[in-house]
Amino acid sequence: MSASSRFFAIDTPVRYAGPEAETPRAFRWYDKDRVVAGRRLEDHLRFAVCYWHSFGWVGDDPFGGETFLRPWHHRADPMAAAKEKAEVAFELFRLLDVPFFTFHDADVAPEGAGLAESVANLNAIADLFERKMADAKVRLLWGTANLFGHRRYMAGAATNPDPDVFAYAAGQVRAALEVTHRLGGQNYVMWGGREGYDTLLNTDLKRELDQLGRFVSLVVEHKHKIGFKGPILIEPKPKEPTKHQYDFDVATCYGFLERYDLTKDVKLNIEQNHATLAGHTFLHEIALARALGVFGSLDINRGDELLGWDTDQFAMNAPELALVFHELLRGGGFTTGGLNFDAKIRRQSLDPEDLIYAHVGSMDACARALIAAAELFENGALTNPLAERYAGWDGPEGRAILDGRRTLAEIADRALASGFDPQPRSGRQEYLEGVVNRFV
Amino acid sequence: MSASSRFFAIDTPVRYAGPEAETPRAFRWYDKDRVVAGRRLEDHLRFAVCYWHSFGWVGDDPFGGETFLRPWHHRADPMAAAKEKAEVAFELFRLLDVPFFTFHDADVAPEGAGLAESVANLNAIADLFERKMADAKVRLLWGTANLFGHRRYMAGAATNPDPDVFAYAAGQVRAALEVTHRLGGQNYVMWGGREGYDTLLNTDLKRELDQLGRFVSLVVEHKHKIGFKGPILIEPKPKEPTKHQYDFDVATCYGFLERYDLTKDVKLNIEQNHATLAGHTFLHEIALARALGVFGSLDINRGDELLGWDTDQFAMNAPELALVFHELLRGGGFTTGGLNFDAKIRRQSLDPEDLIYAHVGSMDACARALIAAAELFENGALTNPLAERYAGWDGPEGRAILDGRRTLAEIADRALASGFDPQPRSGRQEYLEGVVNRFV
Amino acid sequence: MSASSRFFAIDTPVRYAGPEAETPRAFRWYDKDRVVAGRRLEDHLRFAVCYWHSFGWVGDDPFGGETFLRPWHHRADPMAAAKEKAEVAFELFRLLDVPFFTFHDADVAPEGAGLAESVANLNAIADLFERKMADAKVRLLWGTANLFGHRRYMAGAATNPDPDVFAYAAGQVRAALEVTHRLGGQNYVMWGGREGYDTLLNTDLKRELDQLGRFVSLVVEHKHKIGFKGPILIEPKPKEPTKHQYDFDVATCYGFLERYDLTKDVKLNIEQNHATLAGHTFLHEIALARALGVFGSLDINRGDELLGWDTDQFAMNAPELALVFHELLRGGGFTTGGLNFDAKIRRQSLDPEDLIYAHVGSMDACARALIAAAELFENGALTNPLAERYAGWDGPEGRAILDGRRTLAEIADRALASGFDPQPRSGRQEYLEGVVNRFV
Amino acid sequence: MSASSRFFAIDTPVRYAGPEAETPRAFRWYDKDRVVAGRRLEDHLRFAVCYWHSFGWVGDDPFGGETFLRPWHHRADPMAAAKEKAEVAFELFRLLDVPFFTFHDADVAPEGAGLAESVANLNAIADLFERKMADAKVRLLWGTANLFGHRRYMAGAATNPDPDVFAYAAGQVRAALEVTHRLGGQNYVMWGGREGYDTLLNTDLKRELDQLGRFVSLVVEHKHKIGFKGPILIEPKPKEPTKHQYDFDVATCYGFLERYDLTKDVKLNIEQNHATLAGHTFLHEIALARALGVFGSLDINRGDELLGWDTDQFAMNAPELALVFHELLRGGGFTTGGLNFDAKIRRQSLDPEDLIYAHVGSMDACARALIAAAELFENGALTNPLAERYAGWDGPEGRAILDGRRTLAEIADRALASGFDPQPRSGRQEYLEGVVNRFV
Repeated sequence: MSASSRFFAIDTPVRYAGPEAETPRAFRWYDKDRVVAGRRLEDHLRFAVCYWHSFGWVGDDPFGGETFLRPWHHRADPMAAAKEKAEVAFELFRLLDVPFFTFHDADVAPEGAGLAESVANLNAIADLFERKMADAKVRLLWGTANLFGHRRYMAGAATNPDPDVFAYAAGQVRAALEVTHRLGGQNYVMWGGREGYDTLLNTDLKRELDQLGRFVSLVVEHKHKIGFKGPILIEPKPKEPTKHQYDFDVATCYGFLERYDLTKDVKLNIEQNHATLAGHTFLHEIALARALGVFGSLDINRGDELLGWDTDQFAMNAPELALVFHELLRGGGFTTGGLNFDAKIRRQSLDPEDLIYAHVGSMDACARALIAAAELFENGALTNPLAERYAGWDGPEGRAILDGRRTLAEIADRALASGFDPQPRSGRQEYLEGVVNRFV
Repeated sequence: MSASSRFFAIDTPVRYAGPEAETPRAFRWYDKDRVVAGRRLEDHLRFAVCYWHSFGWVGDDPFGGETFLRPWHHRADPMAAAKEKAEVAFELFRLLDVPFFTFHDADVAPEGAGLAESVANLNAIADLFERKMADAKVRLLWGTANLFGHRRYMAGAATNPDPDVFAYAAGQVRAALEVTHRLGGQNYVMWGGREGYDTLLNTDLKRELDQLGRFVSLVVEHKHKIGFKGPILIEPKPKEPTKHQYDFDVATCYGFLERYDLTKDVKLNIEQNHATLAGHTFLHEIALARALGVFGSLDINRGDELLGWDTDQFAMNAPELALVFHELLRGGGFTTGGLNFDAKIRRQSLDPEDLIYAHVGSMDACARALIAAAELFENGALTNPLAERYAGWDGPEGRAILDGRRTLAEIADRALASGFDPQPRSGRQEYLEGVVNRFV
Repeated sequence: MSASSRFFAIDTPVRYAGPEAETPRAFRWYDKDRVVAGRRLEDHLRFAVCYWHSFGWVGDDPFGGETFLRPWHHRADPMAAAKEKAEVAFELFRLLDVPFFTFHDADVAPEGAGLAESVANLNAIADLFERKMADAKVRLLWGTANLFGHRRYMAGAATNPDPDVFAYAAGQVRAALEVTHRLGGQNYVMWGGREGYDTLLNTDLKRELDQLGRFVSLVVEHKHKIGFKGPILIEPKPKEPTKHQYDFDVATCYGFLERYDLTKDVKLNIEQNHATLAGHTFLHEIALARALGVFGSLDINRGDELLGWDTDQFAMNAPELALVFHELLRGGGFTTGGLNFDAKIRRQSLDPEDLIYAHVGSMDACARALIAAAELFENGALTNPLAERYAGWDGPEGRAILDGRRTLAEIADRALASGFDPQPRSGRQEYLEGVVNRFV
Repeated sequence: MSASSRFFAIDTPVRYAGPEAETPRAFRWYDKDRVVAGRRLEDHLRFAVCYWHSFGWVGDDPFGGETFLRPWHHRADPMAAAKEKAEVAFELFRLLDVPFFTFHDADVAPEGAGLAESVANLNAIADLFERKMADAKVRLLWGTANLFGHRRYMAGAATNPDPDVFAYAAGQVRAALEVTHRLGGQNYVMWGGREGYDTLLNTDLKRELDQLGRFVSLVVEHKHKIGFKGPILIEPKPKEPTKHQYDFDVATCYGFLERYDLTKDVKLNIEQNHATLAGHTFLHEIALARALGVFGSLDINRGDELLGWDTDQFAMNAPELALVFHELLRGGGFTTGGLNFDAKIRRQSLDPEDLIYAHVGSMDACARALIAAAELFENGALTNPLAERYAGWDGPEGRAILDGRRTLAEIADRALASGFDPQPRSGRQEYLEGVVNRFV
């Protein structure tokens, strides 16, 4: 009996059993081969399990220590621990039957005595992953490097006042990108965990932005050099761990990419909890990324609307998710992106089974939401009224204005005419909310 | 005796009387001719009184009606009311001895039966202003158009689903811009009060952004056509009155200007309360605008850190303001911009004198803060440690990285060397906070 | 044809048509005679339409004027307007087939030249209500007095620094309570709209709390004197319109009632949007009120989780509501309380039908949620695990501790024993969230 | 040379050197023997250094590991580490010349194999403290027990579903209270770190409140039994680490104390950062505690107004602190309470000297604020207008109302009289803000 099958109480992968199923060990909505809006649910949702929350986190918080006591957190030999962790991880991938996983370098392999040893450790684990992936159906949605946990990065990685720290980060990213490439990763993510500041008193904003622009550009150049085809993804987050993160939100990231001429190669990995911490809805961030042409992938979780920190809870509210997936369907769904469970069980959820229940519950909520969204989308119940509402802009005068064939004076003159008095029309918000409730 | 001298109990302008003065009718710090950091206080601070809060607002809020009962709010004849209001306004400018004022079209002249009549009303009041400005020292910091109060704009002006509403807005802005030009205004402001949405269910984000881009471009073209030299300013605000305003914050506005190629002609008018509603400090927004090259002018007020709406209170906290002015000094101070009091007395501050006390109190807090900021700046107590902290980036390797003369692999190789282990250095936040407290 | 039937485009009351109905003019879930958990849906939910938002509000906000242009807002004769408003109101009650309505004095009758005339106006409208209620099935859930709109109340009513304002408020409340009694109102509500402060600089907190305690006590005494059987309800709200409202949240109100010995006669009217502004969930506030024995009634609406002001939107999210109703069922459901729609259509929802769609949509969301909650409750899927989790406290040692039969030293001594090492058990949050999703 | 003198670069205690001093190693305002408002600054401010942030914390946060690398965090022998830590702590007390310190059991002594060993460790360190305190002037402001860090407390201590955990907590508190008593502690604090919930789905609110009531009552009984004279203090905090803490804010704590009849023996320890997380100002919480008769002591720090978690920064803004101290002076100042620095240097403040600069900077800001507050208070510049504003309530009718000598009907009748029309008077907020700025 393997280590991993000893870790989880169940051995048989979770299967679809229909909405009436009472057990938490079955899917009630996620019937992966069911086709809606032209794709199998599995191909729409492209779920990924993340390594850090599910296998790395020990259950601590700022006021308390570890609660989980996973066996691999207490091995004396870090490489042995990393291998045991990998066994359990791939067992969870199998039990959940998810198509993807994700990781940081520091999640999967221990930090060595210097960068060279750390890179060697990472490559050794990548060898193990290659072997395990050959036998399993799970693939790599994306890889990334942890540039925020170690004390050397306390003042930032790319934006550190010390160019040597920038260099260390470059070393980590190069290795993580190359490993991601080797493992067939579909994207590479850069999360600017410490790229921000705690106080402006010791921060040169302009310098740091330029450093960050250079760093991302270097990674883009390297990606092309090694032939990595997937996009580089940056991830908006407004605050935490720093007081202010440079990749604040979608709009900020867009401006940054424009400034450093990176919109072609870099897209966004958007997270629900980061969206709400920035004062936006998840739906807003996705809709905006789509409007600006920088949509990439999603970290699927939920925040607590009343807490000011990143709670990274499993998303469970189907009506909210349905609108998110409706927006996704409007944009044609994912290409290289997917739904990464950047979500962690509560620190009181001690049992290995809690990991399973959490993923199953959220996968089900997503599936249910997607099915509703597909019906809503195919019905046109939201998109048709929208097209009608803006129809005036598709008329000749609307087009002339937008195409730059009118001056301000010409437009103004029309409004000065006697009797020109455009009347407002109902925005119908409550009616539309009722429409959504018909489908979800 | 004029109407206005009957309105305020005092007739003599407020004068500087030194820090020991006990009366609220004297400046204790704002000695306008005092020179710090190379300029007179008046020339640094460039205070402007705004028309809307001080003369337009009736004292209502969402749960209660008017409290102020100003005489001009109860005249039957709207043009007579507008003239009386102007008398009182210019009397306040005189009593406070401020160098500037600001207004919206709708603040100074009544809406007519159609746009043509509204424009005529505006021009009639502009005639009056010209005459009054000839006798007074007060100048126009900026003018603007109110594109959010009337029900026609309930779903936006430039971003309205109806192109006729866009046209009406164009008519108002053309007139307001021309009047601003005629009155020697130093800037023209566009506040996107309803340029945003209440629900994404009825909103086409991409269309609306394109409409807004077109609108601002039209105004820029018209500005050049009529020879208006000042910048167009747009004003970041994240929410209120809409759930989401398109000009969310400095970073969002910057991305918008980049997208529609407007960074050359358009700068930002930044407000403290809007900054905090967006989850930023005022200092952050100013520093970022400076770093991105889009700094324009300031609306000086304060929000309530615990309330989620725009309270627009008079700024009174000198230590906070000192850091703002230090940042301003680092950038060389205002060019066309100034400190506009987009601030309103509380609705319980019924007495005409409350208008005076509020402005005097805040002008004094600003003056005190500027004097401290100038000392701090000239001492280099913050800027010197900052330069030292980033010194590594001015070295040959730092410059090579930033200038694009290194590849990721080259940089990474350096970090792979044995013993390469950059050590973190103290960020010294508390030390620097103590330094600031030495000066303020 | 009556004025009111001209106001709404439909004449036939909204009826239940089953989940497949596509029209927004039918209920899809609210089958009022359906019995769940032992009561008809109508008797569980006890819906009330409120007068102020639906008929009083003109569609303005802090940045814009009226949008609705209802006919009765533009009558020259205020009593004629009040009567027309009443016609439309009762027509909406009929069309929605709601069992209850609610009002403030100022919503239904115009302010007179003095208090005596205002009271006379109120009584004249109450006469009209009596006649209309005789023909209709609608009843009065509660009445209240508006002690926050008029400028005399700008610094509070009961907590005003001027005892004459307290007296004026007493006059209004006496009349409103007596009218509520006459109309068979089931509760009387006191909302402390201006009972709070804008700045502590001008506020004597202790005095004001004592004034408020006295005021509520006076009302309780008067209620008994006139034989009004229903409870007095106070309504938690943390802020807006004031910076700080004294009835901040359920816990604060409870402490206030304890301090002034009012827990017997006074219960709480809890609102979702007020709960979230206070940093709580609606569910928390209800559960706490139930735990403390002060639960009364509910204002059903929703806030916007990202906006810091009272948006009073119609509640539409069934999963969230289901947990609220589950808590209600645990407490045995409403006695005198009900679900009052303290909710307003958006100011862009101009059409009379928007009023209907909004209420129908939210009534349906509530009905759907209640049906789910009843199943969840009858299944015991949440309550059984809860009882099991705390079972230790029902054992002999648990009871001994709680009943005061153990000292600290005795309890401590037990813990000092060798090997005493209580182990944590999983909190199972995600599992329980999945359980809830099986039912909603 | 001792370990501790090697830890800090300086050996001479920080001394007062006047406002012009440029070194961060001198006080510029805190002249401890200076008398204002009848007491020496030291006796007013009663500063305490806390053990946990300054000596226990390793510099980690939810996204990164330790940064400080203090020698005692890396000793193999935990008791040796505890002793080294104590040496450094007492050295800092000496260098800062503070009159008090504070600690949790877990800060000063290592957890043992069972409770008995933990208590023995605590008592061994208490022996050491007794010896060191005999030689030093520093005294114990308060002690407390850490009932939130260990995994056994993950679901609460007193409010745990398992009564054995309650018992373990009782054991810790008994020992910590007895050690506090032995060391002459002036208060004993209970912080309900995990007394709250993460989800209501697994929480029985009523049971948990009763458990907490019982626990505090047990401690009060034990305090009397052992002759401890100081008050028990509970500490309001709304959230973090739990989603909802039972001791939410001052008002909630007051209601809790009333419910369990504890107001006589239990007072409140109020923290700035907890106040703002609850949606209040620090000033509000102090003023309310004073009004309700439950004011005890203060944790002096500041939060970040834009971050939603407990940043516990050193308080540096003198104008804000001045109003806090003005309120304190109105209440006669501290009795057993003091200003405990529950404040931590930023994790980037690596150098031992940063600990000194942080405390010195905040002590100075407090001293400066207190001096200003004393002048403001003695001038009566805020208190006189306040008395005048409420003067009506000291008149015969005001007194009759408050004393219960008027019925609602009697008061109402007076208001019904013709011409009764109380007029609002200006709240003068801006004027009063200007007054404050004259003093700070």
